[in-house]
Amino acid sequence: MKRPVKIIVVGGNAAGPAAAAKAKRFNPNAEVILYEGNEFISTGTCEMPYVLSGEIENINKIIYFNPSTFQREKNVKVFIKHFVEEIDTKKKIIIVKDLIENKIIKQDYDKLILCTGSKAKTLPDFDTHIKNIFNLKNVNDLRRLDEYIRLNKVGKAAIIGSGFIGLEATEALVKRNIKLKIFEKEAKPFPIADKEFSDEIQNILTQNRVEFFSNIEEIEPVITEDKLVAVRIGEKFIETDLVLMTIGFEPENFLTQSVKLEIGKSGAIKVDQYLKTSDRFIFAAGDNVEVLNAVTDKPDYIPLATHAYSLGRIAGENAAGGNVKYDPIINNISVKIFNKYFVQVGLTSGEATKSGFEFETSFIKTKNLVDVMPESEFVIGKLVVDKQNKRILGASFFGGREVSGYADLISALIKLKAPASILSKINYNYTPPLSPFVNILSLLGKKFTQL
Amino acid sequence: MKRPVKIIVVGGNAAGPAAAAKAKRFNPNAEVILYEGNEFISTGTCEMPYVLSGEIENINKIIYFNPSTFQREKNVKVFIKHFVEEIDTKKKIIIVKDLIENKIIKQDYDKLILCTGSKAKTLPDFDTHIKNIFNLKNVNDLRRLDEYIRLNKVGKAAIIGSGFIGLEATEALVKRNIKLKIFEKEAKPFPIADKEFSDEIQNILTQNRVEFFSNIEEIEPVITEDKLVAVRIGEKFIETDLVLMTIGFEPENFLTQSVKLEIGKSGAIKVDQYLKTSDRFIFAAGDNVEVLNAVTDKPDYIPLATHAYSLGRIAGENAAGGNVKYDPIINNISVKIFNKYFVQVGLTSGEATKSGFEFETSFIKTKNLVDVMPESEFVIGKLVVDKQNKRILGASFFGGREVSGYADLISALIKLKAPASILSKINYNYTPPLSPFVNILSLLGKKFTQL
Repeated sequence: MKRPVKIIVVGGNAAGPAAAAKAKRFNPNAEVILYEGNEFISTGTCEMPYVLSGEIENINKIIYFNPSTFQREKNVKVFIKHFVEEIDTKKKIIIVKDLIENKIIKQDYDKLILCTGSKAKTLPDFDTHIKNIFNLKNVNDLRRLDEYIRLNKVGKAAIIGSGFIGLEATEALVKRNIKLKIFEKEAKPFPIADKEFSDEIQNILTQNRVEFFSNIEEIEPVITEDKLVAVRIGEKFIETDLVLMTIGFEPENFLTQSVKLEIGKSGAIKVDQYLKTSDRFIFAAGDNVEVLNAVTDKPDYIPLATHAYSLGRIAGENAAGGNVKYDPIINNISVKIFNKYFVQVGLTSGEATKSGFEFETSFIKTKNLVDVMPESEFVIGKLVVDKQNKRILGASFFGGREVSGYADLISALIKLKAPASILSKINYNYTPPLSPFVNILSLLGKKFTQL
Repeated sequence: MKRPVKIIVVGGNAAGPAAAAKAKRFNPNAEVILYEGNEFISTGTCEMPYVLSGEIENINKIIYFNPSTFQREKNVKVFIKHFVEEIDTKKKIIIVKDLIENKIIKQDYDKLILCTGSKAKTLPDFDTHIKNIFNLKNVNDLRRLDEYIRLNKVGKAAIIGSGFIGLEATEALVKRNIKLKIFEKEAKPFPIADKEFSDEIQNILTQNRVEFFSNIEEIEPVITEDKLVAVRIGEKFIETDLVLMTIGFEPENFLTQSVKLEIGKSGAIKVDQYLKTSDRFIFAAGDNVEVLNAVTDKPDYIPLATHAYSLGRIAGENAAGGNVKYDPIINNISVKIFNKYFVQVGLTSGEATKSGFEFETSFIKTKNLVDVMPESEFVIGKLVVDKQNKRILGASFFGGREVSGYADLISALIKLKAPASILSKINYNYTPPLSPFVNILSLLGKKFTQL
């Protein structure tokens, strides 16, 4: 029988509930308590743009558990609106502010799991206390933005930043008949993408009448009577009914600063492969930790819901007495932009350069189905290959729905440390309405077959 | 400089043109001549159902080259309506019947490449000389069927056999407002599929008001004045405006019989890994050869356009003096059935049994996207795993467009002889409108992670 133990989980979004449920299942004698500062737990962050667009018709659909259902099904005590303010690692106590009763609670722990996730970056001038300035990081942000649009005449909006959330929000707002302007600090939208792809993304924006402003170094809000009425760029005033800031996010680790847990270069918490922090009673998982990148073998910041969930489960199991290592992670991200999809797996050539790899690339533009099928459309792909050992470092694709399969296949090959030449030797599927006669992966690999 | 040589290619569909073009490119001093008995070369066989449905609006779109464009672009002499009747391997001569001039030609060769492909199986009672009895194997068949439908009031049709072509033709004819009955010898449609999948296929047929008759052991045509008016099954007469036989196909190897080239168990020509037949001056490629199955390591009959094309190129290169081995082949097939897709890669459990494997399977029914997305739909998958070494032997999937990516990933893993456990460790792509939070492949692999 596993010995009783008190496990406290801080944070209730993706990693936290996974950690708590798994800890309790792994050691049913453990007392597991989850604290969340906001009012929701177990929310679908990636789904928010599709609530905003109306495709998911109800915000409640992306709140997968409420505290009582979670408590009942997972046998974990859940406290929402309980904000953990401090950790005393010597006494093994956390200081929690109960925001409902407005009082301070001290809670002891045997093991602590930090799943505080990430927070939206903001431009200091754009204060989200102004009623029409928004972030889109959590369900509260979403609800606020959605309500504002429903209750006000919003004809035009400005989005600052064109990463995932910015692009997804763009599509969502266009679906709500809002004219959009995007302001981006870099030269191209989705700046982490290689240029071939950010060019395509820019085309899609133009085709959908979204105005894209690049190289915006300074942007200022123009506020009248507690309401933003325009943004100013240099001498130019651009009227807008609201501003949405989607300039990325960063690890939420204020708790760790007070207790001097080790922090990595990325600003996220350093953990070992068991997800233990530099304090042996404290684990961490999710968007607040630094993980091993499987391609570079170096610590990296890869904040994604899928990893948060599986890291959460591992942290939960280990906090409850388990001994599971997480596997180094391959970044595998995607975004829908109107009727097109963009995926990126492993390293881009920009990232490969930064990581010090000598590499080669291949690039192909082809059709996703045999040319004579009327629904065939262009797909482009780029492969990044280690010059030394010819292993695949990464790939990007832009096209139709097929791109996710391509990315997953590349992800599998990176995991298996397979050489790029294998791509030309795989027997791919072919039927005219579904898959191409000559697969783009085969074409991308061809360059590396003779080497 | 490569020495001059005379290379004759017999057959002009998929493998033949690939072989001829590659031979000429590999040895520009070679004289390469291609003979085709019918009037078309370089046709898209897999595309025929989509011409029949009207999705591809013109039959000419699936004839990729005519003899003169091929001759001009590839520098290969092409003779259509030239039927090769006989080979004299001692004199190294073929006997060709020129069907235009109605005369016999003798043609000598240094190297011969047989790309005679496959032919439709037929039920002897159903004579395709009857004007409303059809096969659907080549462009002539397609044209005849299409014309008959256009020029006659075709309200109902009977399809005999429910493999790929039968199912694809079913959808195409339903799109042309023809009421369909399918007659199948086995208990389920697409009988090579495992039962879980043939059940789903049967549901789809029912949903689309296609009547499916199983276990039909005897079916007879009822013919009045040179026209079929009904089929008879036992005591029952079923009226129909036409019959389409799609009961499979078999290697076309009549030429080899006269010269005693070695034939494999499957009835297809035996070749070595260089695609050489038992006569060292004769190569063969395409649907008329037996190939090595990469999963079983045994000779198999895997007639698919993609392999025909790449085998053709290899045979062409080797006939012209090259020395390329083909890689053993992984079967990877798919079919669209109305709004659903079915793919099968490697071995089904039926095939694994026949091949003498001890195996285990996992089976999952899940959603192809996160549940809250309105367009999410069911996908089912089955994995077949070698009991001894836990390697993947094959998989089947039935669902939306995602299935082809799943099959290609499995194909890659089979090629790399990867264990099934890897499936649970791959970092899959996730974004709500494109890919699932928990990938079906990960779920299918989970069963094999603890072993």
